[in-house]
Amino acid sequence: MIPRMNAGFLIIASEVLNGKISDVNNQTLARFLRTYSVDIQKTVIVKDEVHAIHKALRDLLEECDFVVTSGGLGPTKDDLTKEALGSFFGKVTLYSESAMEVAEKNYQKFGRIFAGKEHGYSYLPEGFVALNNSTGFAPGLFYEEKDKSILCGPGVPREFRGIIEEHLERLVLSKRSSENQFRLINIRTKRIPEEKIFGEVDKNLWALLEAFGEVSSLPNYLGVDVGVKIFGKNKEELDRKEKEILSIIDKSPLKPSVWHIGLESIEEIVLSNAGKLGITFGFAESATGGLCAHRITSISGSSESFMGSIVSYDNSVKASVLGVSRATLETHSAVSVETAKEMAQGARERLKVDIAVSVSGIAGPQGGTPEKPVGFVCVGVSSKLGTQAFESKLFGDREQLKFRFSQQVLMTLIETMEKFAGI
Amino acid sequence: MIPRMNAGFLIIASEVLNGKISDVNNQTLARFLRTYSVDIQKTVIVKDEVHAIHKALRDLLEECDFVVTSGGLGPTKDDLTKEALGSFFGKVTLYSESAMEVAEKNYQKFGRIFAGKEHGYSYLPEGFVALNNSTGFAPGLFYEEKDKSILCGPGVPREFRGIIEEHLERLVLSKRSSENQFRLINIRTKRIPEEKIFGEVDKNLWALLEAFGEVSSLPNYLGVDVGVKIFGKNKEELDRKEKEILSIIDKSPLKPSVWHIGLESIEEIVLSNAGKLGITFGFAESATGGLCAHRITSISGSSESFMGSIVSYDNSVKASVLGVSRATLETHSAVSVETAKEMAQGARERLKVDIAVSVSGIAGPQGGTPEKPVGFVCVGVSSKLGTQAFESKLFGDREQLKFRFSQQVLMTLIETMEKFAGI
Repeated sequence: MIPRMNAGFLIIASEVLNGKISDVNNQTLARFLRTYSVDIQKTVIVKDEVHAIHKALRDLLEECDFVVTSGGLGPTKDDLTKEALGSFFGKVTLYSESAMEVAEKNYQKFGRIFAGKEHGYSYLPEGFVALNNSTGFAPGLFYEEKDKSILCGPGVPREFRGIIEEHLERLVLSKRSSENQFRLINIRTKRIPEEKIFGEVDKNLWALLEAFGEVSSLPNYLGVDVGVKIFGKNKEELDRKEKEILSIIDKSPLKPSVWHIGLESIEEIVLSNAGKLGITFGFAESATGGLCAHRITSISGSSESFMGSIVSYDNSVKASVLGVSRATLETHSAVSVETAKEMAQGARERLKVDIAVSVSGIAGPQGGTPEKPVGFVCVGVSSKLGTQAFESKLFGDREQLKFRFSQQVLMTLIETMEKFAGI
Repeated sequence: MIPRMNAGFLIIASEVLNGKISDVNNQTLARFLRTYSVDIQKTVIVKDEVHAIHKALRDLLEECDFVVTSGGLGPTKDDLTKEALGSFFGKVTLYSESAMEVAEKNYQKFGRIFAGKEHGYSYLPEGFVALNNSTGFAPGLFYEEKDKSILCGPGVPREFRGIIEEHLERLVLSKRSSENQFRLINIRTKRIPEEKIFGEVDKNLWALLEAFGEVSSLPNYLGVDVGVKIFGKNKEELDRKEKEILSIIDKSPLKPSVWHIGLESIEEIVLSNAGKLGITFGFAESATGGLCAHRITSISGSSESFMGSIVSYDNSVKASVLGVSRATLETHSAVSVETAKEMAQGARERLKVDIAVSVSGIAGPQGGTPEKPVGFVCVGVSSKLGTQAFESKLFGDREQLKFRFSQQVLMTLIETMEKFAGI
């Protein structure tokens, strides 16, 4: 392994540990660090307790060059990060002109008045620096000792991201040697189970790829992402290795199942292809209940190609807004290829789009029957190429099924656009 | 602190650490354990590396009575959990009749044939037990030594949940003494910043609540959740303490800002109130892009009250499907109280619902103007009580703004239902 800068992440949050919320800051930090070729070595989640914070800090500072923390910077009594860090490094807490300035500025920004010296935000352990927080009130913290440094951000995801983006490069990362870089080559495959890929389809693939770097295999709702993390001294070396990997994939029996190479999400691929082809699209959603539209509109700029979605959860809406015939609903039921076809056609006409994809299924846990169990789903698509629908059976609980159904919708959209491009 | 069973959680997942995905299993585990009055003491996320797994295991077993792990149980070479655990406890890996049986059963369930003795799933470190995985292929693992036990589940969230629900109670939790129980009283407030609650609105509140247990304060997109974790020997003691806390809140100046007491989500509250009142509802969504509908339909049984949503992302859809007049769109623009009113009215008529809530706003990062910056949003509501709309200005990035906009929509729905109930 090539030596390089190591980061540790300490999440100080009883509410994450006890399951009230899920942490998302690890992903924010990891993705930011990746652009600097820096890895998180370990992440620890602890309660808001001084003893637990001390123990985890000791552990992380032993392994890592720098530690980032999130949480515990607010103004209430359960916010202990400042206190815990001060006592960890044996520092007394003092009034800090710079901390007061940062806090005052934060308050002004939101049109509120800062209580000044009386407020806890005006005090810092000796030697600590207060960091501007451009999206909230609680200042971040920074402290350096010998070869170790520590940067603290608030737990609120937006504020954590703001602190990281504003300060981490300047205070920590700019000091690293940039000699060793890495890159992640992500090969996205569909419809083959993980063990079949390496056990049947291409038995040599893992070994071939491992010659270039660390290989990983990550199953998701659509298939498996095969990742290869390659290392190099410069861009040229990484480019050369990447090219060799792509040529291995090109010759592999796995090739027909590879639908994308890269880290872009399926939403991003949908929108970039639609943009290139000048295509507009929309959805008629039943079982996904708005999730397809939500996923697409999470991407900035989606309004260029995405016109809208008709979430027809109740059959009356399928009939009155989408124009699905009562006869179809009664004869074939709402979850059928016939209904899916009429939904897609109705959505295409009403939303005035080039491609409309529809989905009707049983997300459960109630509503399944022996012929159409939970997980049964019909996806329809309508475009100038015609209107079709297909059925399939997926596994999972309600949340997972909604997501997997939406994956089928987005994949159908990608495949239909490929046909458009091929005309 | 009252002594009770302690859990540790070890997430073995390079893909979580490097930010490719976010962990959700901690929440699954914590929520499951909460029903048994068991706490997670610490969670550690490590790479798929034997050395890192060993170090974290040693650390967790020192503090905890049992450790749960997720990840690294699959069939590919980066799946190291079994190997790492075996070497940690100094066990040789042997062919295991029971492991083979579990794997065979798993394969049959999905209509596939198991490779038998040749397959890695048929081998286990000595003394380990293979656990049935009812939603996937990789068997779980269980091992016990002295007073410590360890249970391993796959990383895939559905499979992890399945293993926990099927095995954790029987193998581990049934052994705990049930003498000490706890309960979380969650007081949900709106529209007052965290520090104002304890610094201005009710300066005594924190101290008053602290007499009953651990107090926490968690800001979210709608306001602040004040939590009190109370301990007791039995249900009666917990009930008595809860009653006293509720009476403190009743007398507090904070009372008018308390909109709910409990751990139910806002989606659950919407649906339970609608169910009680026999009300149907739907949405007309622009800036939230389907998120309101997605959040509501994530709850099983939502089809009782939720009819549908018209995601009118493009102005043409606002006009043609919802019937917003071209004049309104041109004179006042799409993000205006006028448009929001017509959207709500159009949705109410087309979806044939008792209450329709509409939302149009600027989620950014593009599209802001000096008068209507990013974060500006108009929410409309239409019912037999009339049609109204109001504007507000929120902060955040695109993802956060979509979520905060949807919070306003759901809160408007709750407030409108309260008016219905009051008629």
